[in-house]
Amino acid sequence: MELKIFGHKSPDTDSICSSIALTYLKNQLGESATAYRLGEVRKEAKYVLNYFKVDAPVLLEKVCSEDNCFLVDHNEYAQSVDGLQEANLIGIVDHHKLGGISTTLPLSVRIAPVGCTCTIIYNLFKENNVEITYEIAGLLLSAILSDTLLYKSPTTTQADIDACKALAEITKVDVETYAMDMFKYGTSLDGMSIPEIVHMDFKEFTIAGNKVGIGQVFTMDLDSIMAKKQEYIDYLESSEYFAVVLAITDIIKEGSYLLYKADNNVISDAFELEAAQGVFAPGVVSRKKQLVPNLTSALEK
Amino acid sequence: MELKIFGHKSPDTDSICSSIALTYLKNQLGESATAYRLGEVRKEAKYVLNYFKVDAPVLLEKVCSEDNCFLVDHNEYAQSVDGLQEANLIGIVDHHKLGGISTTLPLSVRIAPVGCTCTIIYNLFKENNVEITYEIAGLLLSAILSDTLLYKSPTTTQADIDACKALAEITKVDVETYAMDMFKYGTSLDGMSIPEIVHMDFKEFTIAGNKVGIGQVFTMDLDSIMAKKQEYIDYLESSEYFAVVLAITDIIKEGSYLLYKADNNVISDAFELEAAQGVFAPGVVSRKKQLVPNLTSALEK
Repeated sequence: MELKIFGHKSPDTDSICSSIALTYLKNQLGESATAYRLGEVRKEAKYVLNYFKVDAPVLLEKVCSEDNCFLVDHNEYAQSVDGLQEANLIGIVDHHKLGGISTTLPLSVRIAPVGCTCTIIYNLFKENNVEITYEIAGLLLSAILSDTLLYKSPTTTQADIDACKALAEITKVDVETYAMDMFKYGTSLDGMSIPEIVHMDFKEFTIAGNKVGIGQVFTMDLDSIMAKKQEYIDYLESSEYFAVVLAITDIIKEGSYLLYKADNNVISDAFELEAAQGVFAPGVVSRKKQLVPNLTSALEK
Repeated sequence: MELKIFGHKSPDTDSICSSIALTYLKNQLGESATAYRLGEVRKEAKYVLNYFKVDAPVLLEKVCSEDNCFLVDHNEYAQSVDGLQEANLIGIVDHHKLGGISTTLPLSVRIAPVGCTCTIIYNLFKENNVEITYEIAGLLLSAILSDTLLYKSPTTTQADIDACKALAEITKVDVETYAMDMFKYGTSLDGMSIPEIVHMDFKEFTIAGNKVGIGQVFTMDLDSIMAKKQEYIDYLESSEYFAVVLAITDIIKEGSYLLYKADNNVISDAFELEAAQGVFAPGVVSRKKQLVPNLTSALEK
């Protein structure tokens, strides 16, 4: 019976791309298989599917005891499709820790401590001598660049880099430019208002007796914010907070651009830089570990 | 730190051979590793180690939190070394169902639904382009022949057969002859007395109001029993049972040789053959499903 291949719930680029690529490989090897997804396709994966002109997998809501399932990019019941414990688990390809699944029959499991499931799938194509098409190479490459944050993530291994090099030759894309475009699109704030962006991930603190607000936005689409820089400042200034900071975090540059309602001295002091609206604070990526303690010690002075 | 590689408790030939072969592969790939065993080396594995002049792995009684462990031929805590849950689990190579292990870190897992762990390890040598020596080929071949019962087991796959063919070319052994010698030695009854052999796995039943005893011995060393055939018969005849049957089961031939204290008609009737001491009953391998019901219906007539 047909094999259902799918990644985890709330699918990221790796879950989408690995389900499609492994399905293609199985089909080439003569096995009947279909790629599924367990949730909405996010912006980043949409960019990838659109760029390489590949259809999204079909939405899968639950499985039953007759279904033959193959997991990619996860190996825990909690992250998987409803009904999996009753279904037949035929195989797993993943790069995460072991999640305690048990089965009644032998199966295929391929887990490796690499940065991305698609790196393992790339190697499965090679082991099985199946040619990687332009489209499949594009999906595999995109997922590895996504999971490794263009090799910046500490989870990156040589196997990931080697796979990307080989895949870039098939797709003929400039890896750096393509990855940045993908990240920008994936983290684009298009269609969101300034209040929505400021409050997307906003927390309130009481520091030295005053109410302080700290918002953080992960995006590589800085330009769209900076184009409306003064409107952001006006919005922050109009707030009732004693001080408020919006950190626009660029995970590739490993730092945050800061917009704020606060005394310039406080910002200079907190982040050891010369304060100015939109200034880049290198290395500042965590609200809990950096933004809050730094602002606390500066405001308590 | 050094990797400890080991198979399951009460190790069979696959557990012994796969721990040694994977350790050799890791060493060739520049990783420090040592093969261990979780129990006594059984006769069959002793034959293999002696034939190919390889030392047995070191006995491992428990591991602690500093140990880096790699499991072969099992993937369940209950079958593994004491202390494993506290140790670092680095990897698994296996051919069984998933046993519910969970880890805190990503690891390497390679599980395939093939007949023997050594079939997977053979493929790991090929994938890593590491030459298989005469000794390692001998261990891999022996384990696959053992687990697949010379391809007779229903768990046998084409991958097992392909691996054996390639390994037989390296070792230059005649597969059939070698396997039969290994099975014979592994199931040899050397050093055991007639009463010990008869009572090795003996059960008593009441059939049609009479006490009936049925013993079963799995061995491919029929000759050593048949050399003392009359002594066995005398021993059975001297018993207090109304009827007693000793089934000497040959799993490769898929049947049992019968020695008995019973009316010839009962034996003929029960197994649909012409009764004689030492007669071969084709297809009779299970006491529960064949010996007991067949004798019951014959004795109740």
